[in-house]
Amino acid sequence: MRDIAVFSGSAHPELAEEICAHLGVPLHPVRVSRFANDCLEIQLDANCRERDVFLIQPLVPPVQEHLVELLLMLDAARGASAGRITVVMPHYAYARSDKKDAPRISIGGRLVADLLKTAGADRVLALTLHSPQVHGFFSMPVDHLHALRELAAYFRQYDLSETVVVSPDLGNAKEAAAFARMLGTPVAAGAKQRFSDDRVQISAVIGDVADRDVIVLDDEIAKGSTVIELMNHLRDLKARSIRLACTHGLFAAGALDRLSEPDDVLEIVCTNTVPIRADKRVSKLRVLSVAPALAEAMRRIHNGESVSALFS
Amino acid sequence: MRDIAVFSGSAHPELAEEICAHLGVPLHPVRVSRFANDCLEIQLDANCRERDVFLIQPLVPPVQEHLVELLLMLDAARGASAGRITVVMPHYAYARSDKKDAPRISIGGRLVADLLKTAGADRVLALTLHSPQVHGFFSMPVDHLHALRELAAYFRQYDLSETVVVSPDLGNAKEAAAFARMLGTPVAAGAKQRFSDDRVQISAVIGDVADRDVIVLDDEIAKGSTVIELMNHLRDLKARSIRLACTHGLFAAGALDRLSEPDDVLEIVCTNTVPIRADKRVSKLRVLSVAPALAEAMRRIHNGESVSALFS
Amino acid sequence: MRDIAVFSGSAHPELAEEICAHLGVPLHPVRVSRFANDCLEIQLDANCRERDVFLIQPLVPPVQEHLVELLLMLDAARGASAGRITVVMPHYAYARSDKKDAPRISIGGRLVADLLKTAGADRVLALTLHSPQVHGFFSMPVDHLHALRELAAYFRQYDLSETVVVSPDLGNAKEAAAFARMLGTPVAAGAKQRFSDDRVQISAVIGDVADRDVIVLDDEIAKGSTVIELMNHLRDLKARSIRLACTHGLFAAGALDRLSEPDDVLEIVCTNTVPIRADKRVSKLRVLSVAPALAEAMRRIHNGESVSALFS
Amino acid sequence: MRDIAVFSGSAHPELAEEICAHLGVPLHPVRVSRFANDCLEIQLDANCRERDVFLIQPLVPPVQEHLVELLLMLDAARGASAGRITVVMPHYAYARSDKKDAPRISIGGRLVADLLKTAGADRVLALTLHSPQVHGFFSMPVDHLHALRELAAYFRQYDLSETVVVSPDLGNAKEAAAFARMLGTPVAAGAKQRFSDDRVQISAVIGDVADRDVIVLDDEIAKGSTVIELMNHLRDLKARSIRLACTHGLFAAGALDRLSEPDDVLEIVCTNTVPIRADKRVSKLRVLSVAPALAEAMRRIHNGESVSALFS
Amino acid sequence: MRDIAVFSGSAHPELAEEICAHLGVPLHPVRVSRFANDCLEIQLDANCRERDVFLIQPLVPPVQEHLVELLLMLDAARGASAGRITVVMPHYAYARSDKKDAPRISIGGRLVADLLKTAGADRVLALTLHSPQVHGFFSMPVDHLHALRELAAYFRQYDLSETVVVSPDLGNAKEAAAFARMLGTPVAAGAKQRFSDDRVQISAVIGDVADRDVIVLDDEIAKGSTVIELMNHLRDLKARSIRLACTHGLFAAGALDRLSEPDDVLEIVCTNTVPIRADKRVSKLRVLSVAPALAEAMRRIHNGESVSALFS
Amino acid sequence: MRDIAVFSGSAHPELAEEICAHLGVPLHPVRVSRFANDCLEIQLDANCRERDVFLIQPLVPPVQEHLVELLLMLDAARGASAGRITVVMPHYAYARSDKKDAPRISIGGRLVADLLKTAGADRVLALTLHSPQVHGFFSMPVDHLHALRELAAYFRQYDLSETVVVSPDLGNAKEAAAFARMLGTPVAAGAKQRFSDDRVQISAVIGDVADRDVIVLDDEIAKGSTVIELMNHLRDLKARSIRLACTHGLFAAGALDRLSEPDDVLEIVCTNTVPIRADKRVSKLRVLSVAPALAEAMRRIHNGESVSALFS
Repeated sequence: MRDIAVFSGSAHPELAEEICAHLGVPLHPVRVSRFANDCLEIQLDANCRERDVFLIQPLVPPVQEHLVELLLMLDAARGASAGRITVVMPHYAYARSDKKDAPRISIGGRLVADLLKTAGADRVLALTLHSPQVHGFFSMPVDHLHALRELAAYFRQYDLSETVVVSPDLGNAKEAAAFARMLGTPVAAGAKQRFSDDRVQISAVIGDVADRDVIVLDDEIAKGSTVIELMNHLRDLKARSIRLACTHGLFAAGALDRLSEPDDVLEIVCTNTVPIRADKRVSKLRVLSVAPALAEAMRRIHNGESVSALFS
Repeated sequence: MRDIAVFSGSAHPELAEEICAHLGVPLHPVRVSRFANDCLEIQLDANCRERDVFLIQPLVPPVQEHLVELLLMLDAARGASAGRITVVMPHYAYARSDKKDAPRISIGGRLVADLLKTAGADRVLALTLHSPQVHGFFSMPVDHLHALRELAAYFRQYDLSETVVVSPDLGNAKEAAAFARMLGTPVAAGAKQRFSDDRVQISAVIGDVADRDVIVLDDEIAKGSTVIELMNHLRDLKARSIRLACTHGLFAAGALDRLSEPDDVLEIVCTNTVPIRADKRVSKLRVLSVAPALAEAMRRIHNGESVSALFS
Repeated sequence: MRDIAVFSGSAHPELAEEICAHLGVPLHPVRVSRFANDCLEIQLDANCRERDVFLIQPLVPPVQEHLVELLLMLDAARGASAGRITVVMPHYAYARSDKKDAPRISIGGRLVADLLKTAGADRVLALTLHSPQVHGFFSMPVDHLHALRELAAYFRQYDLSETVVVSPDLGNAKEAAAFARMLGTPVAAGAKQRFSDDRVQISAVIGDVADRDVIVLDDEIAKGSTVIELMNHLRDLKARSIRLACTHGLFAAGALDRLSEPDDVLEIVCTNTVPIRADKRVSKLRVLSVAPALAEAMRRIHNGESVSALFS
Repeated sequence: MRDIAVFSGSAHPELAEEICAHLGVPLHPVRVSRFANDCLEIQLDANCRERDVFLIQPLVPPVQEHLVELLLMLDAARGASAGRITVVMPHYAYARSDKKDAPRISIGGRLVADLLKTAGADRVLALTLHSPQVHGFFSMPVDHLHALRELAAYFRQYDLSETVVVSPDLGNAKEAAAFARMLGTPVAAGAKQRFSDDRVQISAVIGDVADRDVIVLDDEIAKGSTVIELMNHLRDLKARSIRLACTHGLFAAGALDRLSEPDDVLEIVCTNTVPIRADKRVSKLRVLSVAPALAEAMRRIHNGESVSALFS
Repeated sequence: MRDIAVFSGSAHPELAEEICAHLGVPLHPVRVSRFANDCLEIQLDANCRERDVFLIQPLVPPVQEHLVELLLMLDAARGASAGRITVVMPHYAYARSDKKDAPRISIGGRLVADLLKTAGADRVLALTLHSPQVHGFFSMPVDHLHALRELAAYFRQYDLSETVVVSPDLGNAKEAAAFARMLGTPVAAGAKQRFSDDRVQISAVIGDVADRDVIVLDDEIAKGSTVIELMNHLRDLKARSIRLACTHGLFAAGALDRLSEPDDVLEIVCTNTVPIRADKRVSKLRVLSVAPALAEAMRRIHNGESVSALFS
Repeated sequence: MRDIAVFSGSAHPELAEEICAHLGVPLHPVRVSRFANDCLEIQLDANCRERDVFLIQPLVPPVQEHLVELLLMLDAARGASAGRITVVMPHYAYARSDKKDAPRISIGGRLVADLLKTAGADRVLALTLHSPQVHGFFSMPVDHLHALRELAAYFRQYDLSETVVVSPDLGNAKEAAAFARMLGTPVAAGAKQRFSDDRVQISAVIGDVADRDVIVLDDEIAKGSTVIELMNHLRDLKARSIRLACTHGLFAAGALDRLSEPDDVLEIVCTNTVPIRADKRVSKLRVLSVAPALAEAMRRIHNGESVSALFS
């Protein structure tokens, strides 16, 4: 294996630039052409031959455009005799399509994993997949990072003596507990019972939140309905203040405005796995960078060093 | 596709016999030879050519023996020109190995799905997989049944006016809620927070159980520790009586004795996806048969009728 | 193989409706859900089990959306135990990405063929692929129709005694000659020499066009630059009138207006492989339907009759 | 990747020897045994383990013998633990079978690409494939050279001030134009319309050839009928002299005699991708060597340097 | 599965004709074109769509031509949407390349099995493979016939009271014993010790042959050296007469003359799996037909009846 | 490829330890967990990333446990991004299932080879496979050692002037002859005719054994029936003494006792490819180590040196 060669699709070039700056390597240019018939063509503008190629592309909206672009980048890299191709996918949107809970539906999380393989991916570097089982959908090695260290480092600036970490549902509670351990705080969790796709009801918050500063931790926030529902409970239970933390800040239409409006919400903290348009940003928003962590993982992948050691 | 041909491995011939009786077809003999060097050889003793072949084998202890036996049965059926091969796997033990929560571990749930494919399986008929994501581990069509109808039919014999269905953890709560709807009862759930493999702690029971007859519903019971812990909570909360219900009654060493000992445990109800040795059975145990449901699903698979319609 | 089951993606439901009307079978509904994170999920709302499933989806703009939607439809059909899945793709936009004429570029025509295979396609029904070699990109059977009969039937309404068929370039001349034979007219061709992607130059028109009614025949018209250049040559050579005919009427931004503006252009004839928005249509446009031909091919595929016999 | 190991099949050992001389590496011996039942067996007589193995074999007559021999060489190299196997195939005869222009015919160009993959090829080094789409038939990386530089270097010995490069048909015109640019001459082209396999008609020569020295450039010459027909046109158009140039000099029975007979044909220039038997050679024939170009490409492939840079 | 469609390559059309006569179906024509560059192209001249296609082609000399022809036939049948493709290969020459007894040699028996799969074969009908392990080289179902019944029926015309069946080596002795049981005779065997490829030595004949009429039974006879050596032993041991019997009569250069020359050789009996040129035939040769057996096996394969039942 | 990483399953850790001692590398720990439902989970406790991983596991009883354990180890190593994975399988028990000698039976030798591939094996290091054709069952490179050098070195301690090597059957005679050449002795062989699985009859011993010291050489001894039968013949033929030698000492129930009991059996020599429980060992047993040979082969595989050179 010779030199590293890093390329970025059009999903999140800022993150790719930042990663390359940390690695001290250039971000090579990619030419994306769109023909009159709306087809895409990719040209990778640097030698890939026998190189250790990394393609950075989170699957963020427009997801279908970015997915096909990524598949074409893989095809181009493979055809250009790349030595090994790692897809760096800080956000894997299709991970939410992970089960068949109705007859005759697609399981996009598995299908897209297979498509990446077909197009030439040798391995994947992912970050906080929606459910841990999605790892098993891939028939190639996956390095699965999380962003808890980045989030914890940020919150340590505060006096955390009266703080409690709250997970919106118990499915995510294990991660919230790990986060609480990092911060030296107790943990609580909403007990979300989801009976159907359109009726979600939180019956209880388990753990003590009264008169406490709450950090709500979730893996991703899209429309934010679950969090808003949780916050209503927290207020009923006399929580003192609320901070929201998540890895993937998708923030679908109006979510940032809705979430930041209440006075008791002090701030919203997410990472930059998903690009956030300048005009959507609000004053209470803090965006932490996962670029150093991704860069370090890529360096270890390139050098054959343990990535799991990153977390110990 | 011509006639159906059903074979059983050595894991659970009684269930296979019962299924065939419902289908009105013979259970064809299988010769399993064990050589001096401990290798197995399978001979299917009926014509498979262009037949719609069903191989019945739950992955129950000794799991490795039954798994390799099943793989050899698949190889024999494929080599014998079977038209289509469906693995009928009422219990898929490896479904519990569905994530990579430590570095460098195997993900058996995905691996075994791939092995079945390699050996020649065209499709799988499963029953109550441990997590719904496991469906996505298979690269072939899976029909996924559950046994709630069978369990509900049984419990309807009782006066259920003071009954509540309780799920030991919230991961299983959706299924418990569906079960409660079938019985016309309310639902409650233990809020189990599993922080590590060896430390499981139930913090609360959400929902009202005082002075009620409780039906605890879980997908499987192996050692039974979670259920025993839940029952302590239920007693603290003044539950009136307890019935245990599960699909897969694995009942590892001594579990049936431990579970049936307390006086307030009125009965333990499971299905026959897993064979239970006569000497392990206790007087409070009721075993319901899933053979009619499996037989009906097999009939629909064979005839190309909708299986999902079975549940509507 | 049992009954036929036809589904349409969102690319061109009108064509699918028309095909089903010709076949006398229902067009089954498809539910396309878009989640907050922009991912798609497909549900096929009719039993697919052991059915002969046809999925109708031309790859028209937005191409990436329609491609991923098609891949998810394939995944859903396969997971639903379809007996056989035929992709009916009246327009395969990625066929134009058929060679590697620059270093490190993607070959989308081959990649997408592989992706369809991965997602579960068993066979493809295509119509007038951009180059005949694209057929070889598919590792599954392809039935390849053309629309010359439909176009010829339309033009036979005219007095063709002074007509000549003109191909814009010699690559397409074989098809133009076949078309001329059908109409009983002579044939001519532009000799297009394409030296680079941005510099196309037509050096000559081979064959006699003076004082003749010209039918320009091309496989597809997108921006229409080649045709406009050809028409300038035709006018220099004293052609009497011009009619434009093509199979795939992509008509990118403003093309229809540009092409129909000159007085000597009498009409523009295409087929309905690509939907044309009502507001883009012009008075000189005639759209012929390929639905009868596609329906007949699907009927023959379903019944195992020769499709090539359609053309003899 | 360790040392390079080069082997040659029996198709063209002279070319292989010449390549190895340029590379400064030995050509390792290959033992080809033919059994009494006409089967072949290959033994590679040098260690392949973890080596960067190159197998040199153009698919020249007897094509089937050389193809199967190549497949067996691949099998032997793979079984001997080669680190990477590159097929060096200076002439890919089956590239002409690239479309399905009649019902139920084979597409040999795609099939043979798949067979090479099955037998163990990791990559291919080809030279002037008949059509650029054939590149897409391979599911592995292909490096695709051409021999224009070698041909241009040869013709630069002449006074080219009155010379024009002529392509026999417009399909090859892009390459002829590139060649003309190299030589600083104008370009012209025959406009060949091929309506059926047995009826080829050239309607015109586009561009000025009167009183000029013509260099006819084609990718390959087999029977030479097209070239002979073109030369008749050139004489009608008062061309002063004719030189024939091609990459692949197949020269089927009598072609060299027929082509070199006319007095105005000054010479026939080809490369040595195809061996030419001494008794078939004529005095007007010049054979240029592609061995330096192939050797340089192999060196770059081995070292992971850009091959496309060879052409810039 | 609809109608049967049988095609023959050019290896043995007489056998194919005979098989079709027994089946009462037409042998459909195949067009084999050889281009100027020595490549082959196949066209199957009958509808294959959804048909149960059988391609008859023993791998007899010229083996490479017949092998590639067969692979192209498979490609054509697959591309023509055959429902199922069975290769009928009465002689599989490459079965002799079944082990790796020297470093870096090809294992043709496995490779060719993989090539057939790649080209589209769904199943194989073979006859007397050289070693039983070769069955395991195929990753598709193989029906493996033998011709003992045909040979036995022929020899039953004689008084067999003083006859002994002799196998030239012990590897074949199991088959010879089965044959002797059919004829009601004792069995003997040469004890051939093959120490290296070029030194074969028969040390003994086990069993009583003195004053007996010997039937030597082998799977195939190519050069016949082993049989000639055995006959010398038999004469030393006072055998009364010798008849030679084999399934595959390859009879390489001069073998028939050499074998039939001695007076005590009464006749040479083989089957028609391999075509024997008229000018090579000798008066002592009897050729039995395997066409009825192959036709019956094909009928059973088509109808989904047991083929193994043919032998019980 | 970076450092070597060696792991052992639970089949034969002593052999693995010994190999690692010879290689001078650590044997890394493997955690094997058995869950309550009898499923296994593997954790490899050393970094595998880009390492040259060797997994040592002979398929010895309990074979199914050791096979599934090995498959899970492969899955873990692949998921942990191993650079290359070599299965070191000193005894491949399933090699005996190498043919289909009855209808509808499994061919375990081929199936298990495919399973290893599916689970992630890149190559195999085997030792004395039961039949050489089994090599062809693997679709990956196999290095196939034998233990003749180790056995010969041991026997050279004796005066061999009156010794003869005897193979129990002629199938193994080639190996016995090679062994005799190493020792400078003559060779003889039992002529075993195996007509059916349950009736084995030795008709003769070819070669002179009277008044000689016999070394019986076989590839493996399980129940020992063949050897016991041979020894009866040897005694009839006045052999002076008997020594038994084999590579794989499986020694099924009581075999060692039965074989060592007769006075004329001087010793039983095998290698340590199969572990022998201390309580089964007998005084006449000598166990030679193949660890040095396996270690040397692994060293050569790791360094890319010729393994076949080990035997020349």
